[in-house]
Order: sequence, then C-alpha cells, then structure tokens
Amino acid sequence: MPKKVDRQERRTLIADALMRVAAEQGLEAVSLRHVAAEAGVSPGMVQHYFRTKDEMMAFAMAVVRERGQIRVGDALARLGENPPPRQLLRTMIAALLPLDEQSRNDGRVALAFLAYTAVRPAAAVAVSEDTAELVDFIAGVVPGPAPREVAAGVLALMEGLGVYLLGGHYTPEQALGALDAHFDMVFHRPATT
Amino acid sequence: MPKKVDRQERRTLIADALMRVAAEQGLEAVSLRHVAAEAGVSPGMVQHYFRTKDEMMAFAMAVVRERGQIRVGDALARLGENPPPRQLLRTMIAALLPLDEQSRNDGRVALAFLAYTAVRPAAAVAVSEDTAELVDFIAGVVPGPAPREVAAGVLALMEGLGVYLLGGHYTPEQALGALDAHFDMVFHRPATT
Repeated sequence: MPKKVDRQERRTLIADALMRVAAEQGLEAVSLRHVAAEAGVSPGMVQHYFRTKDEMMAFAMAVVRERGQIRVGDALARLGENPPPRQLLRTMIAALLPLDEQSRNDGRVALAFLAYTAVRPAAAVAVSEDTAELVDFIAGVVPGPAPREVAAGVLALMEGLGVYLLGGHYTPEQALGALDAHFDMVFHRPATT
Repeated sequence: MPKKVDRQERRTLIADALMRVAAEQGLEAVSLRHVAAEAGVSPGMVQHYFRTKDEMMAFAMAVVRERGQIRVGDALARLGENPPPRQLLRTMIAALLPLDEQSRNDGRVALAFLAYTAVRPAAAVAVSEDTAELVDFIAGVVPGPAPREVAAGVLALMEGLGVYLLGGHYTPEQALGALDAHFDMVFHRPATT
C-alpha cells in the first residue's frame, strides 16, 4: 500500500475486499478478520476505518450504488441528446440489471445488503432515499395515468428481475424479454384505464 | 419434546428455529450452534437431521414455500369457483407478498435464502423449478400477446415488491398500488403490441 493514502481511498480498498468476500462466499462470510485478510491489512486497520459491520456494509453498498450510477450515466451518454422516453428508461434499467460479471458481483452485494437490512431497517435509509428518487424520475418519463404507481412497478420489476438473474432463475434473454413486454404495455397503454 | 417425534417433525422443529434466528437476526447469525440453542436441542441433534448448513437452508426454504402455497390456496378458496382471471392473479400475488407479520418473517427467510443461493447456484434448483411453474401458470391466465414474457414480468414484479416491502422502501399501499397499476396494463392492453 502506498505510504500516503487518504481516508476515502483506504475505505474504498477495504470495501472492495468486503465486496469480493460477499460476492464469492456470501454475506455470512463477511467478518472483520476475513475482510482484513482479503484486503491485506490488519483487523485493527479495518476497525479504524469502520467501527461496525453496519458501517462497512453501508459503505460497500454506497460504492455499489455509485458504480450503478456511473454505468447508467455511461449508457445514457451513448444514447445522445433527447432519446425517446422508452429508450431512455430501457437503457437505464438494463444498465442496472446484473447482466455482466461486474454488475453481477455488485448485484450480489446489493442483494446481500437487502437481506441484511430486511432485519435492520435503520441501515436501509440511504437505499430508501435512492428508491424514492428513482420512482420520481421514472414517474416523470412514463406516459398515461397513475405515473407514480407505474413507476413504482417499473422499479420493483427491475429489482425482481435482478434477483432472478442472480439466482439463475431467469436467463438474460428472459429478463430482457420480460422488461420489453413490460415497456410494450407501459408505452402503448390506453390513455385511461 | 415428546418422546416419539418422527424425523419430519423434528426437522420442522429445527427449521422453525432456524427461521426465527434468520428472521430476527439475519442469515449471517444462522449457525448450527445458534439454531440448536433456539430449538432447545443439542448441536449434535441438529447435525443428526441436517448434515450441512445448505441442507438446513434448503429445508427451511421448502417450509416457507409450502406455507406460501397454503396461503395462496386459502385465499383462492375464499374467491369461490371460476373467479375472473385478474381477480385470481391479484389474489394469488397479494397472498405471496409480505404484508402481515407471518408472511414478513417468511419473506425475510426467502430473501436470505435468495442472497445465499446467489453465490451457490446449485442450492437454488428447487426455487428455479417453482419459478418456472409459476411463470407457466400465470402465462395461462394473462390475455394478449407474449404471455410468457408478461408472466415472467408479473412474477419478477412480485419478487421486487416483496424485497421493497421487507426493506421498508415501499409501504403496503404503494406495493398494492403498483400491483394494481400493473394489472390495469396487463388486462387492458391492446390485442397487438
């Protein structure tokens, strides 16, 4: 490790180690000692940067979210200016699905984090804020009645497709087929229901 | 514990203890010793019935799935004979969502199991078979084109809503609103897309 490493870099280094452990062996393998070994630092060093496992998990999740935002930003940049709403949403959701190795690893961490926070709701606040923001954004893009309900459905569909992709229950083709069938409905539905 | 307990009953007793531990403290708290303490039996006894943690997890998941099937069966029985397709599906999906305490506990176990199998795909085979059966069933009920893709979407939507309910990201009202908006689209969509 270089001599001068700032706090954020070291935290990221440790969070990366945590994610490798979680992605390869599952959340239950994540311990201070295990993460320290993976990162090549002492357990005391890990504890210096993350006082609790909750803190470590929350930081790892923040890294995963940031990577997701970067993937979305890159994919949208490739679309050029003012893409049609359907293409915009499809590109955004597809960029967030675990369809390649890096996003699968991130997805495993996200799923582990969701399972972790299902019994510790306080740790889920940041994710809840993200979710609400995404619902707002999607609601501004979908046409027709009940945009907030439709948007909440689009986001939940994404989450469910992600879970089934990670578990190997859906193939990438099935997941994208379900997504496209969903957008067929969202963007072709009658003006009143 | 009664003197004569058959194998299945004892396994269920131990699986119930496992589920209480997983529901209250998360998957990472599930250990042979911890489950034994919760069940009031010796660790050796737990090991007699479940040789590995994988076996214990798979059995607990089977119990959760069976309870889900019973909830669905009960809810459908209350609908009477030949309910309209939309009511049938809505009732089925709502019965599977974590909307009360028992189904929330079961949902936490299911989520923990999904996170567990995301890094151990072999353990997920039974869930994959369930998923495929449910997709087939729903595909037989939804109207219009691309029934398999639409069905895969309905099931993924259910999974995602469940995850967001467990994490507290959606309220029950939001989740049911998203479900109903989805069914508005599924059951009112044009005959061709």
